[in-house]
Amino acid sequence: MKSQIVTFLIKCPDQKGLVAKITNFFYEKGFNILSCQQYVNSIEDTYFMRVRLNANGINLTKNELENSFLELAKPLNFDWSVNYGDKKQNVAIMVSHTSHNLYDLLERAHEGRLNCNVTMVISNHNKLRHIADMFNVPFYHLPITKETKKVQEAQVKELLDTNKVDLVIMARYMQILSSDFINHYPERIINIHHSFLPAFQGANPYRKAYERGVKLIGATAHYATVDLDEGPIIEQDVKPVTHESTPTTLKIIGADIEKLVLAKAVKNHLNQQIIVSGNRAIVFPEAGE
Amino acid sequence: MKSQIVTFLIKCPDQKGLVAKITNFFYEKGFNILSCQQYVNSIEDTYFMRVRLNANGINLTKNELENSFLELAKPLNFDWSVNYGDKKQNVAIMVSHTSHNLYDLLERAHEGRLNCNVTMVISNHNKLRHIADMFNVPFYHLPITKETKKVQEAQVKELLDTNKVDLVIMARYMQILSSDFINHYPERIINIHHSFLPAFQGANPYRKAYERGVKLIGATAHYATVDLDEGPIIEQDVKPVTHESTPTTLKIIGADIEKLVLAKAVKNHLNQQIIVSGNRAIVFPEAGE
Amino acid sequence: MKSQIVTFLIKCPDQKGLVAKITNFFYEKGFNILSCQQYVNSIEDTYFMRVRLNANGINLTKNELENSFLELAKPLNFDWSVNYGDKKQNVAIMVSHTSHNLYDLLERAHEGRLNCNVTMVISNHNKLRHIADMFNVPFYHLPITKETKKVQEAQVKELLDTNKVDLVIMARYMQILSSDFINHYPERIINIHHSFLPAFQGANPYRKAYERGVKLIGATAHYATVDLDEGPIIEQDVKPVTHESTPTTLKIIGADIEKLVLAKAVKNHLNQQIIVSGNRAIVFPEAGE
Amino acid sequence: MKSQIVTFLIKCPDQKGLVAKITNFFYEKGFNILSCQQYVNSIEDTYFMRVRLNANGINLTKNELENSFLELAKPLNFDWSVNYGDKKQNVAIMVSHTSHNLYDLLERAHEGRLNCNVTMVISNHNKLRHIADMFNVPFYHLPITKETKKVQEAQVKELLDTNKVDLVIMARYMQILSSDFINHYPERIINIHHSFLPAFQGANPYRKAYERGVKLIGATAHYATVDLDEGPIIEQDVKPVTHESTPTTLKIIGADIEKLVLAKAVKNHLNQQIIVSGNRAIVFPEAGE
Repeated sequence: MKSQIVTFLIKCPDQKGLVAKITNFFYEKGFNILSCQQYVNSIEDTYFMRVRLNANGINLTKNELENSFLELAKPLNFDWSVNYGDKKQNVAIMVSHTSHNLYDLLERAHEGRLNCNVTMVISNHNKLRHIADMFNVPFYHLPITKETKKVQEAQVKELLDTNKVDLVIMARYMQILSSDFINHYPERIINIHHSFLPAFQGANPYRKAYERGVKLIGATAHYATVDLDEGPIIEQDVKPVTHESTPTTLKIIGADIEKLVLAKAVKNHLNQQIIVSGNRAIVFPEAGE
Repeated sequence: MKSQIVTFLIKCPDQKGLVAKITNFFYEKGFNILSCQQYVNSIEDTYFMRVRLNANGINLTKNELENSFLELAKPLNFDWSVNYGDKKQNVAIMVSHTSHNLYDLLERAHEGRLNCNVTMVISNHNKLRHIADMFNVPFYHLPITKETKKVQEAQVKELLDTNKVDLVIMARYMQILSSDFINHYPERIINIHHSFLPAFQGANPYRKAYERGVKLIGATAHYATVDLDEGPIIEQDVKPVTHESTPTTLKIIGADIEKLVLAKAVKNHLNQQIIVSGNRAIVFPEAGE
Repeated sequence: MKSQIVTFLIKCPDQKGLVAKITNFFYEKGFNILSCQQYVNSIEDTYFMRVRLNANGINLTKNELENSFLELAKPLNFDWSVNYGDKKQNVAIMVSHTSHNLYDLLERAHEGRLNCNVTMVISNHNKLRHIADMFNVPFYHLPITKETKKVQEAQVKELLDTNKVDLVIMARYMQILSSDFINHYPERIINIHHSFLPAFQGANPYRKAYERGVKLIGATAHYATVDLDEGPIIEQDVKPVTHESTPTTLKIIGADIEKLVLAKAVKNHLNQQIIVSGNRAIVFPEAGE
Repeated sequence: MKSQIVTFLIKCPDQKGLVAKITNFFYEKGFNILSCQQYVNSIEDTYFMRVRLNANGINLTKNELENSFLELAKPLNFDWSVNYGDKKQNVAIMVSHTSHNLYDLLERAHEGRLNCNVTMVISNHNKLRHIADMFNVPFYHLPITKETKKVQEAQVKELLDTNKVDLVIMARYMQILSSDFINHYPERIINIHHSFLPAFQGANPYRKAYERGVKLIGATAHYATVDLDEGPIIEQDVKPVTHESTPTTLKIIGADIEKLVLAKAVKNHLNQQIIVSGNRAIVFPEAGE
């Protein structure tokens, strides 16, 4: 293994000695443990760990490491995954006609602030093509109607699979994806919803927020699941607003919240900081390595 | 009128010249206008104004002022009220068994940080009597069961009315008041709900927040209306939380949010900063007079 | 005057009747007063007002309006300005080698979220040319050394004046401007400082923040004055950080705060929401017109 | 050892294998590791760990445990401490004439929300005696003048030492303690400063904040050190303010920030979440055990 960062994410039934056993394993293989974060859910008796290793000077292939780890993982019933720092994830961004999230994601990726390749932008409208063009990212205009929904989704799927897309970002795509589509990419689709979920699920949250007279508005980034707006929440934030706000000004204030919330959720995902457990997302803070 | 602060709250259909007409009226009467805050809801074409006056050296009785103002108010269809700084409002606090809001309100009132007389604490449990005792505030223990609900509410009502209570604060009373009771005190009951409404309406919001895996929790102070947790929102705040939180730790974090949100809503009400319009509360910021 | 928004900003010694006199003036001219915001500084006995008018159907030239207003303004010692909605301000952005603020400002201007013309980007480095190119904005590379500082500033000044620039945005320019330069553009240069001023004035605030072990970091947008980092503060925000943060991660977290703080300050300026009084900036909130 | 929570805090030079070695040690002794939090400062090559253990069913005396741990600690150059859940810390609160922090701390301790015994309140004024009385906590009025400062400090010291006080809370004591005094209680005095340090060090921060026109104000809880307002920061928070604020209203807004910041810092200290390193406080988040 070349010098690189290796990240293990582990979920298993809680039991005595887990942290000792796991850290010993990596210590004995010669790894330097950069950080080791754990979380015990004592309501469900479940144990979660994220370990970041420096593979500098380790004489093991990836296969050897994983096979060896399996011997530890099996008897302890680990649900686990490993990621290697030498592989950049492929990302696709789906949009409709609001531009702020798209600009923000492309800018971060372009300047190296998001560790990924943006392979394409897909939209049911042609309106944002100029932004993808600016950043030299392929733009696919795939319109959608009730009648063509199935065909369109198949086209999207083919694009994603042909380009080996690891993560789909719904940056205000505003279309409801079919269960089939969503189930094809479990924990691999991140959606931004423009409210502090579970408040104002569904359409027009800013109008509903105005009508309800709330004193704060927000945004929520979550993994897409079959139940609309019900997936595991990765990141949320709010800003205070006043009675002066109209649905239009709420939209403008909200745009800035959405940008930061979505970008942070995507970064956490790309950085392997997330383990999903049922409907809850365990999001380990970025360790200051 | 002795030297004092006089506050007018006005709501009316929007039209040209309102601010000029109203401020002229007070200018010609000789008042010094300390602050004049307005809000135009252009969706509903409604105009709102809060004027704070210094009555220093004004030779008018309250009656004379009000009769004179009526002549301006009638043709312009004002819905208005006036408050005089020489009258302290009477407040009653209703609690069940959580103490943090009660302590906080009593402390603020006792130290002059809330401009009111706390006339009594009413509870369906006896658990918090020691706190009322500490502050020398009468404590009424009025237990409640399904069968006695009607009778108990009548007892509460008599206590409130006998003591000329202007504002009822439900500081985690945890009982659903009857429509009759609520309609008797329109815009005069403030409730604290331990979530960022409209999320997690109803019971056990902290448990629901844990289960939904939200990344922030909050509290909402609102006027009680017949529709539970649906009344006009006065104040809201949230704090970020992580997956580490359990329903128990959420409750502890939430207690601090509740305290500040409720105290601020009560202060805004006592300071005549609020005009209710339908289901929305217009909350003018405190002017730095 | 064509149908447009007209904004008056007024500062004067406080006295009885100001709001009545001013609003009457506009009412009698036939204007519809969209919003009228005031602030009384009772420590310095100074009165501030921002009035937004709809000039729809007003048969006055700009000159006529201003001459007429002068008659009101003179005896009351108004310090005032007026802005007309039909004039878009010209903006220049000065940068060095960090890109996040530049992207953000260009994106907002390009998508119509900032009401201005970005006439140019000026930099002492060539590094960010590609971003100006993306948005088709002229980029001027004007390197600076101790020896050439005076000449370079003269070049900048000529560029600004030739292009009738109304507002200069120092989006992390990282150079100290001469007093001459700054005095040439009073209240027309907005700078972003990467700390919550007055904490960590001067260079390397993120390193200082790390060393001081602060639990929050922030950013401050202010008008540039001769005293470095001492000008009137327009907007500030912070985010919580932990001991895990390094100077490098603080920089990354801080970038997002800087972006929003600078954009909001610029928007407030372009929207005529600011009156400067001594070293304090009165920033009226955006009225929900 | 009875069933209880045991907490180890460890600081040492960073090296390979630390987490494995430490967690192994406890695992082999039979402890259940409730949480194990670590932090690596890679700038100073220092390693920090907080381990929480359940001593349920462990047949070791405290002495045996500590002697055994020493064998691990010595060769690895641990700077370490251990705390046992069966010992409640003794706390003294020092105040001057502002009451909000005192109320808040006494209320939390009284209701079991702070895990400590408040043994006394010490003040240089008599003004807050009624609050200590309410909570049945001894109140010592020890006035101070330039001349009596030395004697008074000696009296305070005797009170603290006689009552085996573990932690001194300066809840707006507003007096500068001598170096002698402070050095006698290293990392055992927590002070609340009413600004977001390092901004506005020293006296009258709210007045300075008004004059500087800042758009947010805050509070900072830190360990007292010989350099005034320079000690390790434990907790900070801010709230947005506007130009409307006067020094007086800033004080009122600030009081709520102070209360929460001080209470949280004290809780973190009592809960053994803090390791001080130079001038930085490592504050581990509360693990959701």
